[in-house]
Amino acid sequence: MKYLMTFSYDGSNYKGFQKQPRAKTIQGEIEKILKIINNNEEVSIHASGRTDAGVHALNQKAHFELDTKISCEKLKKALNSMLPDDIYVKEIVEAKDNFHARYDVKAKEYIYKINMGEYDPIERNYVYQYNKRLDVVEMERALKYLEGEHNFKAFTKADEQKDDYVRTIIQAKLTRDMRNVNKITISFVGTGFLRYMVRNIVGTLIEIGEGKRKSEDIIEILKSQDRRQAGKTVNPEGLYLKDVFY
Amino acid sequence: MKYLMTFSYDGSNYKGFQKQPRAKTIQGEIEKILKIINNNEEVSIHASGRTDAGVHALNQKAHFELDTKISCEKLKKALNSMLPDDIYVKEIVEAKDNFHARYDVKAKEYIYKINMGEYDPIERNYVYQYNKRLDVVEMERALKYLEGEHNFKAFTKADEQKDDYVRTIIQAKLTRDMRNVNKITISFVGTGFLRYMVRNIVGTLIEIGEGKRKSEDIIEILKSQDRRQAGKTVNPEGLYLKDVFY
Repeated sequence: MKYLMTFSYDGSNYKGFQKQPRAKTIQGEIEKILKIINNNEEVSIHASGRTDAGVHALNQKAHFELDTKISCEKLKKALNSMLPDDIYVKEIVEAKDNFHARYDVKAKEYIYKINMGEYDPIERNYVYQYNKRLDVVEMERALKYLEGEHNFKAFTKADEQKDDYVRTIIQAKLTRDMRNVNKITISFVGTGFLRYMVRNIVGTLIEIGEGKRKSEDIIEILKSQDRRQAGKTVNPEGLYLKDVFY
Repeated sequence: MKYLMTFSYDGSNYKGFQKQPRAKTIQGEIEKILKIINNNEEVSIHASGRTDAGVHALNQKAHFELDTKISCEKLKKALNSMLPDDIYVKEIVEAKDNFHARYDVKAKEYIYKINMGEYDPIERNYVYQYNKRLDVVEMERALKYLEGEHNFKAFTKADEQKDDYVRTIIQAKLTRDMRNVNKITISFVGTGFLRYMVRNIVGTLIEIGEGKRKSEDIIEILKSQDRRQAGKTVNPEGLYLKDVFY
């Protein structure tokens, strides 16, 4: 029986999503529990994509197959009762035989949270503590240059080898927290994202917000297809995989 | 030289505020750093009050004395550069010789955060995960019975021996999160709080919100001065010392 699972996690205490031999990972924890549920037979989960160490997920999706049929509600309960408290299964539904949680992705949404105000120990693992003011209007202008179909090679991991670096950002926007002027969230809806792409874009946006670059610089950076033209990779703790659309 | 310090902390990884011989505590961490700054001479900090294990603070206050005079700005920087990242000094000012951070407290504000919606791993250490709906209107009614001067013996730790259990709650209110109907914050401004008082009050309020008790029951519970009449002590992670007023 094939299932599609929606789950959230706090990535703070994990070496990322993808299973590794000697490190605690989200995939590793979930597969360990699924193996117990599946009468001690190994189960592989196929997620919409990986997330890096320290990155969180609000609605990650993964499919997997079990040897026996268990009701979705029972399966959800069993998983949540055995998973650590920083991983939570929100929903499980039956999936069609030909469904694939990665190949069938239509779009994904990532959000990145920044605190421009005073350092806050309570949110240190959940909001990037930039702790200085940024020119938010100039950053918003820059976001407009990112929307649309572009080659994002300049914004991916330097040594990432891909056949195709063209992706479409359907929407890129910046939201101010109505209750706190120092809190902003940058969100990206796109057809796909390259490794480190969101964190490299946000690192560049921060340099624009600092006045070190202009919003139009985005055009040249995209054109260059050169990682060295873009800004620094910003910290993982502000990043959340928010939604996956099929 | 005498100083008054305002600081915030994430209580998740501490056995409470107060120093203990073999446990990691907020006071222990701060005094360890102050000793280094004070040329290896012991420094005692006197806080507005203790907080229990897992409880957070947004604006805790403490006074202390150093053998030498250091500028407040330098002292703040030195402390923050050496303290762990879950404790943060927000402000240091010079204090008068006769000032005492505990004895001079005029009022304190505590807040308690509850999530009535789905379990959220991201906020598991910062918002109490009740994860079921509560009758918020009945809870608001109950809060009105708590305001004013009362003997709060029924709401303190069962074995707590005090000369005086009379305290004044200046304001008790419930706030709904405008962006999420399932999130509520209960806040209490009072002249003083007994040990476990806020958590025992919130535990009772939750039973009222569950329909197991009526809001008017608060009157009888207060009158009884009997801990067994009140509700359970609710989890520490939803509780924050928000402000201390002098």
